[in-house]
Amino acid sequence: MAERATADFSRAGQTSPAAAGRARAVIDRVSPAVDGGRFPVKRVTGETLTVEADCFADGHDALRVMLRWRGEDDSEWQEKEMAPQGNDCWRADIVAGAPGRYRYRVVAWVDHFASWRSEFRRREDPADLRQAAEVGAALVAEAAARADDTHREPLVAWAAALAAAARADGDPEALRELALDPQRARLASRFPDRRFETASPVELPLRVDRERARFSSWYELFPRSTSPEPGRHGTLSDCAARLDYVAGLGFDVVYLPPIHPIGRERRKGRNNAYAAGPDDVGSPWAIGAREGGHKSIHPELGTIDDFRRLVARARQLGMEIALDIAFQCAPDHPYVTEHPQWFRWRPDGTVQYAENPPKKYQDIYPFDFETEDWSALWHELKSVFDFWIAEGVRIFRVDNPHTKAFGFWEWVIDGIGRAHPDVIFLAEAFTRPKVMHRLAKLGFTQSYTYFAWRNTKHELTAYFTELAHGPGREYFRPNAWPNTPDILTETLQHGGRAAFTARLVLAATLSASYGIYGPAFELMEHVAREPGSEEYLDSEKYEIRSWAIDRADSLRDLVALVNRIRRENPALQSDRSLAFMPTDNEQVICYAKRSGDGSNTIVVVVDLDPHHSHGAWLDLDLDWLGIATDSTYQMHDLLSGARYLWQGARNYVRLDPAHMPAHVFRVRHRLRREQDFDYFL
Amino acid sequence: MAERATADFSRAGQTSPAAAGRARAVIDRVSPAVDGGRFPVKRVTGETLTVEADCFADGHDALRVMLRWRGEDDSEWQEKEMAPQGNDCWRADIVAGAPGRYRYRVVAWVDHFASWRSEFRRREDPADLRQAAEVGAALVAEAAARADDTHREPLVAWAAALAAAARADGDPEALRELALDPQRARLASRFPDRRFETASPVELPLRVDRERARFSSWYELFPRSTSPEPGRHGTLSDCAARLDYVAGLGFDVVYLPPIHPIGRERRKGRNNAYAAGPDDVGSPWAIGAREGGHKSIHPELGTIDDFRRLVARARQLGMEIALDIAFQCAPDHPYVTEHPQWFRWRPDGTVQYAENPPKKYQDIYPFDFETEDWSALWHELKSVFDFWIAEGVRIFRVDNPHTKAFGFWEWVIDGIGRAHPDVIFLAEAFTRPKVMHRLAKLGFTQSYTYFAWRNTKHELTAYFTELAHGPGREYFRPNAWPNTPDILTETLQHGGRAAFTARLVLAATLSASYGIYGPAFELMEHVAREPGSEEYLDSEKYEIRSWAIDRADSLRDLVALVNRIRRENPALQSDRSLAFMPTDNEQVICYAKRSGDGSNTIVVVVDLDPHHSHGAWLDLDLDWLGIATDSTYQMHDLLSGARYLWQGARNYVRLDPAHMPAHVFRVRHRLRREQDFDYFL
Repeated sequence: MAERATADFSRAGQTSPAAAGRARAVIDRVSPAVDGGRFPVKRVTGETLTVEADCFADGHDALRVMLRWRGEDDSEWQEKEMAPQGNDCWRADIVAGAPGRYRYRVVAWVDHFASWRSEFRRREDPADLRQAAEVGAALVAEAAARADDTHREPLVAWAAALAAAARADGDPEALRELALDPQRARLASRFPDRRFETASPVELPLRVDRERARFSSWYELFPRSTSPEPGRHGTLSDCAARLDYVAGLGFDVVYLPPIHPIGRERRKGRNNAYAAGPDDVGSPWAIGAREGGHKSIHPELGTIDDFRRLVARARQLGMEIALDIAFQCAPDHPYVTEHPQWFRWRPDGTVQYAENPPKKYQDIYPFDFETEDWSALWHELKSVFDFWIAEGVRIFRVDNPHTKAFGFWEWVIDGIGRAHPDVIFLAEAFTRPKVMHRLAKLGFTQSYTYFAWRNTKHELTAYFTELAHGPGREYFRPNAWPNTPDILTETLQHGGRAAFTARLVLAATLSASYGIYGPAFELMEHVAREPGSEEYLDSEKYEIRSWAIDRADSLRDLVALVNRIRRENPALQSDRSLAFMPTDNEQVICYAKRSGDGSNTIVVVVDLDPHHSHGAWLDLDLDWLGIATDSTYQMHDLLSGARYLWQGARNYVRLDPAHMPAHVFRVRHRLRREQDFDYFL
Repeated sequence: MAERATADFSRAGQTSPAAAGRARAVIDRVSPAVDGGRFPVKRVTGETLTVEADCFADGHDALRVMLRWRGEDDSEWQEKEMAPQGNDCWRADIVAGAPGRYRYRVVAWVDHFASWRSEFRRREDPADLRQAAEVGAALVAEAAARADDTHREPLVAWAAALAAAARADGDPEALRELALDPQRARLASRFPDRRFETASPVELPLRVDRERARFSSWYELFPRSTSPEPGRHGTLSDCAARLDYVAGLGFDVVYLPPIHPIGRERRKGRNNAYAAGPDDVGSPWAIGAREGGHKSIHPELGTIDDFRRLVARARQLGMEIALDIAFQCAPDHPYVTEHPQWFRWRPDGTVQYAENPPKKYQDIYPFDFETEDWSALWHELKSVFDFWIAEGVRIFRVDNPHTKAFGFWEWVIDGIGRAHPDVIFLAEAFTRPKVMHRLAKLGFTQSYTYFAWRNTKHELTAYFTELAHGPGREYFRPNAWPNTPDILTETLQHGGRAAFTARLVLAATLSASYGIYGPAFELMEHVAREPGSEEYLDSEKYEIRSWAIDRADSLRDLVALVNRIRRENPALQSDRSLAFMPTDNEQVICYAKRSGDGSNTIVVVVDLDPHHSHGAWLDLDLDWLGIATDSTYQMHDLLSGARYLWQGARNYVRLDPAHMPAHVFRVRHRLRREQDFDYFL
């Protein structure tokens, strides 16, 4: 394997052909690939990566094709033979290993031994057979020369036997049998002539994340609202005490809005009032005051030791703390005086406040990513992540990443990923689709979605079909939230308990990662600040709230049940298998998910109308569900515990939102029939 | 424009950010691009190239986007502003110039002047306006500093006026008017700050061919069958005399099978007999004998001077001679003894003959493209093209390119194209789809198609929709042939005159390039060698034929008419606009084409059943055809001369294959109505 050739005289235009001329295999269209390899394909540990490529050579010779992959820091490639799928397409599956960065490519070569063998099979004339056997003997002798010591001898012997038989005037059938011996052929094929191997032009990048990147259940809460005494500023210790409640709900990520000192200059008052009163606590996103900035903790929340205890307590409960990283500053953030060059100053000595139209953040200065001192700025911002990583945080929800330079995100996520491949970044970019996709491509592990504003059957079907099956499936991992502190949708404002229930079930079953902002969600907080607004009245963003988490009408039991269903059903832990099934009622949506091995199948049916009971005929794709056309199967509603016997594709459901607007069925195939009893045999 | 930055820290992984950090614009998905720029997009001179790209930046600043292009040997880029299309997509059109190689890419930058102007427009507060005017004055002053001498002064004056007005406590409306002056804004925008410009990562290649690459009508004939005296071996002079006939048919490319000396060793007899008789002339594709090889002319055809006269006569008649380049050798080709290392010898001292399964070419040795002497082989083969180019040939039909190394084709076509951008290569690869596409990508100008085997409405619709609108439209230019010397389809064998007529009209109107093998085609030669075979009985491939070209039942007038219709109707000269329209009869196909400027529209209707008359209701897409829903329009059948008045989308046709199985309508929109007469006014 001394000489490696490539037939790619590509981008640079005319290249001196050099040693390349003898490489005849062609590799085209390796997939998956994001933008031709500019960005990595994403998988989680244990997930399958199916690689396909179009491979062929001139003429009619046999081809061999290998998938190669390695960790980015490994010098050795691993290889797996790719199998032809017809139409010149070749395929191999690999299973993603430990979190980290990998590369893969396809190599192919014209295999003279395999070509010879397939031609030999077609020959009939005895003279032809002898001539071909002599050619074959030479090919086997070459394979023997390439073989390692333990395998050389049998190949040498085979070559000699073939050569002798070719020269003898023996029985053609015996010659054929000797030449086509499958076991010896397998041995010879282990030592192919790969001198003229072709490699696909780009080493395609693969990013492997840990499993939580794909399957996660988030709960957002404001630590300052966790005090058991109404009116008192909650602390990180109160928050730690609240973790039992969150764990009881079944979540695994507890996400905290910024916990840093809150600016006093231009602080906002309750309900986003332009001016704060003396007792107003301000918005946690107005980061920084004389007590410190992004690496400090708001004094009223506690100390770094309190934070460490919080992180440890979460871990004890099987959960993780996720921090909100919002790269922006209150006017009194220490950065503003220490690094004035990081901000764009106007002639009057002020900085234009941040905006995310139509939202105005008068209490916040944005960084100027075009500053001449950008390199120092980038490194300082990276050090914020590094600081909290050192404190044990491995999940970051990044605030408005689309208002910071894309190049910065690519650099910082790449750098952190290399040192800490277990870190997860959630992009909070509610913006235009291509911007959201770019952020996902350049490194964000998960992305917020438009789910909050997708309500009708058509909207949900189109959007989640695109997420599950569009090109973004290779890099864009959705995280669906029915509400956030910024988003109280009209559906939740007006739909009552049924709307909260339906939106919870939809988020938790359509998307392998989802989250709620609580306790506002489970307590069905639904009053907007004003008509037409999605802002909460008396929003926690600007004041401390006290939540009656034990209220009898809380959805907490339902939330806990839904999260348990998610944990117990692998079908719900990935987005890649989603399939919508027709119903004859526009208000009734039906979709299904299957686990990779097909052992777990979930069918969800939701009444999207919170005000009326609806019946619908479902038209299930039995083939897709793995159900034989004529078999009876059991639909086990994991929400109610009820079990239904269904047969065939067409089945009827009726949902009453006043009671429960959804079924989450687990499909149970095996039903006991008379044949299953001993006496029937 | 001293410092140019790029935000692309891509393939090589982590790059030191260097000056790149301040470039905030992102460019994604530039199209068209073939395999990410690995292969060129193709256009012909005068054709439009519409380039689109997704461009955006972080935040809410205004963007400017430019399309740049240049000839590969030009050092200077040309630029055109791209316009936003919504959803972050930007677009610009350019018109392809002279034949040759070009590159294009997209550049974008955040435009602070445009951002300032759009923000200024929204401001209301007088103090705000003054502050903004001061910022604007600084931006205009910067533009002035970048301006050339002739434009600097008005910008300096504007900056000064803005600054003064900002400081004065004047009329806000006057200040607004001064700041938003559109004429001055246009001037300032001519001198943008492009220091932090981003460029799309790949300079995408564009190959521009001459117009005949897109629109060509081919006629294949065997020179040895052009003698006016039956039995005598035709010569190049006979062939030159036959050119008047071919020109009368309206063709512009006359393609000759190989004209080289024909091997005597293992020569084939009539009807592909394994052994030739003493008088058998052999196959022209068994190239080479003691008289010479690929750069020689078969002595019985004439001399190089005869060839030169043939080329000149064709040119006089507005046609071109295309040569067949078949890289293979008869066993007595001089190469075989001069360069034995270019062939793969078997132990018995023979070479395995060429095959293109199921066809066996026992009279032909293939080259061994894995020879160690491949570089000399490549150069020698290239010299064959160069030889005939020097003799004035600019079109080559390449025989079975898929049985020669792909790398060779890429190298040879690239090299020839650089020296002679007017050379056209037609790939005769009737093989698997991905192989055909690869050949088109790597440089072949035109490609044979599966047209011969696409007969039903469904087959034709699916295949030509893919050709016109699939990804191949950027590089795969179809050339449709109803017959070739190798392909006498069952349709032609059994369908009689109606089948020949229908297949001619289909080829000539579905595909901007098409060809026939004549005079076999127009004389409706239709007897196969044996049932199930597509070989002609008494094929010209193995013997001399004498054709009665003046036979009364010849299709020559129809062929001439069809070619005239093609020349007179630009709609038929490109494949990019093809649209199929529904009919209610599976035997009646309907499709339309429009010229780029919409001035010429053709609707074709063909009865695909050669045995029965069929009527059908057409369902025309009036919008697509550019016809107002309520207007009456004239359908002018260019085949029969008949004119029909139609109204609305639904119209009826009846075709009788015994008479004429097709309409080729030109849509004539303007009908004289009462309003059009003077007295109506």
